[in-house]
Amino acid sequence: MKAAYFDGSKILVTHDYPDPKQGETLVKVRLAGICGTDLEMIQGYASYTGVLGHEFVGEVVKSSNRNLVGKRVVGEINAGCGRCQMCTTGLERHCTERTVLGIYKRDGAFAQYLSLPEKNLHVIPDSVSDEQAVFVEPLAAAFEIEEQLKIDINSKIAILGDGRLAQLIARVLGINHKNMACFGRHQNKLQLLSKLGVQTKIGILPEDEHTFDVVIEATGSESGFLDTMKLAKPRGIVVLKSTIASKNKLDLTPAIVNEITFVGSRCGPFRPAIQALASGVIFVDDLIDSVYPLDRLNDALDAARDSEKLKVLLKP
Amino acid sequence: MKAAYFDGSKILVTHDYPDPKQGETLVKVRLAGICGTDLEMIQGYASYTGVLGHEFVGEVVKSSNRNLVGKRVVGEINAGCGRCQMCTTGLERHCTERTVLGIYKRDGAFAQYLSLPEKNLHVIPDSVSDEQAVFVEPLAAAFEIEEQLKIDINSKIAILGDGRLAQLIARVLGINHKNMACFGRHQNKLQLLSKLGVQTKIGILPEDEHTFDVVIEATGSESGFLDTMKLAKPRGIVVLKSTIASKNKLDLTPAIVNEITFVGSRCGPFRPAIQALASGVIFVDDLIDSVYPLDRLNDALDAARDSEKLKVLLKP
Repeated sequence: MKAAYFDGSKILVTHDYPDPKQGETLVKVRLAGICGTDLEMIQGYASYTGVLGHEFVGEVVKSSNRNLVGKRVVGEINAGCGRCQMCTTGLERHCTERTVLGIYKRDGAFAQYLSLPEKNLHVIPDSVSDEQAVFVEPLAAAFEIEEQLKIDINSKIAILGDGRLAQLIARVLGINHKNMACFGRHQNKLQLLSKLGVQTKIGILPEDEHTFDVVIEATGSESGFLDTMKLAKPRGIVVLKSTIASKNKLDLTPAIVNEITFVGSRCGPFRPAIQALASGVIFVDDLIDSVYPLDRLNDALDAARDSEKLKVLLKP
Repeated sequence: MKAAYFDGSKILVTHDYPDPKQGETLVKVRLAGICGTDLEMIQGYASYTGVLGHEFVGEVVKSSNRNLVGKRVVGEINAGCGRCQMCTTGLERHCTERTVLGIYKRDGAFAQYLSLPEKNLHVIPDSVSDEQAVFVEPLAAAFEIEEQLKIDINSKIAILGDGRLAQLIARVLGINHKNMACFGRHQNKLQLLSKLGVQTKIGILPEDEHTFDVVIEATGSESGFLDTMKLAKPRGIVVLKSTIASKNKLDLTPAIVNEITFVGSRCGPFRPAIQALASGVIFVDDLIDSVYPLDRLNDALDAARDSEKLKVLLKP
């Protein structure tokens, strides 16, 4: 089959990649999304080799559950052992034996076909388009915040970043929260949020400092992390949605002096994400920049790397 | 009066330091404790100049409240504005206008006299000795953990460090929790905890990794901080009790992947600390290494810097 294989240093589309392994549900990929994590992995962030991609919508072509065959599905990316304490308490995504689609020991979605355990798959209702469905995985990550944290309705919330993830987080938190500001750097991206009624800011002013009850870090940059400590109130909460690896020394003293709570937050629940798209509560169509055929992978990656652009999709 | 003045680069005992300012309660210092923060400040950690010291017990010699005169007292170190939202909701220690005894814009306890607002002072019962009372401030910092965090009775707790603060934390958490291990480097200090029934460990073994529900960082070192991410379970809680300023790049990726919660924790409530000493629930006498007269400040600081030793006290 056709697949985009990453050998640890470069990524290449090959036309004779082996088919996905037997014994799992086989999915024909209809559309895949390029995520910031994919771009970081190509730069060597993880020691992964294999087919990249973990955001997708596809059609089931083979499954031990016949009812699934022919259905459009999205898939949870963590496949746990099914036996440990994490797996048996609904936290399969923290199983220490897990494989992760396109990220860890499991070929991903930048390919014509992928396989996943049947229980990882969720059928997508007809009212949700392919272009929308491919957002379920990152949207679930945005829903994870309120899964982990009870945020008071009157809380003052700051979101750091205006990229793909920040956009989804602002939309999800916007369902329950109105006192929210988004700090970004790109006028065109902030405008999308302004249209949805979110307050947007370029740069932190002195009057913003230490005034937010909850701060969400979605830039993935060291400066974004440092800004969280500037924005959060004493005893405030900071949610770390994107991975942070500092290039410099990092001084956590302000976090201890101000008794900040940091909450690491990753993959989330698929059901509310699918429902939000199906009901129209969450709108994502304005986030799509372009769709490329898999053969034009390099053009697609260049577009995804362009900080002015939002979501870039691949059609295998 | 006699006082140990820090000019920003060196600390010297002077015999003609000005008396504390009028308009506050005047306290004659009976005993003061040397804390890790004092040692860091002498190395230039904060841009403070003035009299150092924030752990003390003393006798009130002058106060607008006549009932206080002659009483033995300890004192909360943060003096807030009394008007802001933090001050009016009992979180004076987070007031942005605050001064802090011996730490920020307020002369401290390494002196014959100090002054504090009357409301900062707590009378010490006769059953508590001077040597015990000087532990109230750091003990309150240990009580702060369960003030901020509800720790389940069955939680598996790790404490990183075996120094002064770690010793107090182990004793305070030991009141409610039995499933607790302390990771240290000093056999003599770990032995004190073993005697109290706390499990002690030198070094982290593979079977310790990702098995603790709650991890308390009390080493103040970068390696201690990195160890928290090694010890905490996925979705576990890490309490940062000592300030961390990394000397190297810091990778927070494991914290996000494992959805760790970090809670910065600082000064705490004095009342439970005084009660615990008065009732004998907390025993601290074994933590005292030596008492030096203020004139022998340099010997006292050398002793406090010795990693084999625990609490060093000063008698002005």
